[in-house]
Amino acid sequence: MNVTGRTKPHFPVTESSVPDHCVTRLAFRVRFFETDLMGIVHHATYLTYVEAGRVEYLRRRGADYRALMDRGFHMPVVEARLSYRRTARFDDELIVATRLGALTRVTVRFDYEVFRGDELIVQGHTLLACVDATHKPRRIPSDVADLLRAAELSQNSPAAVKP
Amino acid sequence: MNVTGRTKPHFPVTESSVPDHCVTRLAFRVRFFETDLMGIVHHATYLTYVEAGRVEYLRRRGADYRALMDRGFHMPVVEARLSYRRTARFDDELIVATRLGALTRVTVRFDYEVFRGDELIVQGHTLLACVDATHKPRRIPSDVADLLRAAELSQNSPAAVKP
Amino acid sequence: MNVTGRTKPHFPVTESSVPDHCVTRLAFRVRFFETDLMGIVHHATYLTYVEAGRVEYLRRRGADYRALMDRGFHMPVVEARLSYRRTARFDDELIVATRLGALTRVTVRFDYEVFRGDELIVQGHTLLACVDATHKPRRIPSDVADLLRAAELSQNSPAAVKP
Amino acid sequence: MNVTGRTKPHFPVTESSVPDHCVTRLAFRVRFFETDLMGIVHHATYLTYVEAGRVEYLRRRGADYRALMDRGFHMPVVEARLSYRRTARFDDELIVATRLGALTRVTVRFDYEVFRGDELIVQGHTLLACVDATHKPRRIPSDVADLLRAAELSQNSPAAVKP
Repeated sequence: MNVTGRTKPHFPVTESSVPDHCVTRLAFRVRFFETDLMGIVHHATYLTYVEAGRVEYLRRRGADYRALMDRGFHMPVVEARLSYRRTARFDDELIVATRLGALTRVTVRFDYEVFRGDELIVQGHTLLACVDATHKPRRIPSDVADLLRAAELSQNSPAAVKP
Repeated sequence: MNVTGRTKPHFPVTESSVPDHCVTRLAFRVRFFETDLMGIVHHATYLTYVEAGRVEYLRRRGADYRALMDRGFHMPVVEARLSYRRTARFDDELIVATRLGALTRVTVRFDYEVFRGDELIVQGHTLLACVDATHKPRRIPSDVADLLRAAELSQNSPAAVKP
Repeated sequence: MNVTGRTKPHFPVTESSVPDHCVTRLAFRVRFFETDLMGIVHHATYLTYVEAGRVEYLRRRGADYRALMDRGFHMPVVEARLSYRRTARFDDELIVATRLGALTRVTVRFDYEVFRGDELIVQGHTLLACVDATHKPRRIPSDVADLLRAAELSQNSPAAVKP
Repeated sequence: MNVTGRTKPHFPVTESSVPDHCVTRLAFRVRFFETDLMGIVHHATYLTYVEAGRVEYLRRRGADYRALMDRGFHMPVVEARLSYRRTARFDDELIVATRLGALTRVTVRFDYEVFRGDELIVQGHTLLACVDATHKPRRIPSDVADLLRAAELSQNSPAAVKP
């Protein structure tokens, strides 16, 4: 099912170009709880899938999201857009592919594609803002910005962000 | 917090103009479960709030969503976009204002604003497609289309859509 | 459906007897999101319903749960037991009846019944422990204990617990 | 934190004794979404963890839960009991250990322990009833009963339950 026509987001990359190879894939199974009475994965659930995707994106670049919080900042979602192309069902094996979409001094956009095998199920992005503990905007630290632009570390690499 | 700049969705109204007064308001309280470790309502939760908003929108026009399903069609979300302007917290009293955004032969867009008093918390829309039980696109029945364009019924009006 | 036989919890009331009239009722509608592919309310959802019930129980006795947190303590759930007697469906109007089940120096048990009209849907209890911000057990303050044992305030009564 | 005292469920095994070695372990990470404002995993979330545990239990014995549904029966939860011993946090790696607790002609009880490394976080059980599509009780088919009592299959074993 694709009734939305254009689904590719056109979002201005304001500060940096993003290398296309910076993609992280996370595999998981649909839980029973995540379905609704239509027998499909509820559309709100995909926001939790892509959230897991970006946590994994950070982890594979050496950034423990908890460590970022311990340094005093959060990255709340300020915009989310998802386009639902096909439906997924209980026990399906899905993969969320997460890539850096855009990076400014205070925001970062992640782009996502959720697949079941070769089938594209959901496509979208979230825009996150860097804020401090009182929810005031804060500049993304340069070491974190470098990390966001990086490719995945090999497994033996040391973590780059520590609390 | 508003770091997104433009938040008003620009979405083409392809078939019908929508009277601006067709708005339904639903009040509710934030549940403890709906918060996350940032102490705020998790961003995915708003998709469940606006879903409750459009169920109420239909109800106040005489359309029981269950009755629609009993007639053999569903209206899955095919696109969702939310812009998060402020944060909400546990036990906040929120109001979701739902209005018809656009109506085509096979899709309907609802626009939402979530308020805490006068403060705009979240703004966005969802696009729904009319499909049958096998998830094939299906034309929105004319009586349902009329109903979607209607103002709220007075409380004594009979329900307009029956199974 | 009742295959469980005995469903009434037998839990020792260790310190205080609880007046039977201390019941608070909260009405709400089942959200679409809360159903699963069996077409019924997912069993985990009832823990969020009874949580809303005990928040309301506290509110009607003048205790804002947020105010309790501002005084430095939390009341996490340390045991939960639910018995599912019937199923509920999307858009059902349910009522959760919450009553004080038992009160000790460091724990409080709430008993719940979830109804749809006269039908008992779910019955159960949760046991909560009083802890401080570091999750260490803490004695329930006497003013809070008094409040937990109280009947509902009339609407004009002043709130009894302030931060 | 353990204020509940006795946490081992005493539940009569009515028909079959259950070999102690029939345990299935499923590892997963806590998602951000699953935390609440106390900074811990919300207690209702554990019911979704143990649900994933028993789906995995069935899978490793050759029973696709979807295949069971295709044969016309469901196994709704009719009783759930959880004892929360410690708290878990965002990004923790947890393991849910699922074992068969009791099996009667129409019900099956699963016992669970959720661990973080060697630490026991949550312990509990759920009782499920076998019902048909109209939620009427139904005898558990003998091939399914055999399968529930079985140890895990080796990876090359054929699936035992087909639609």
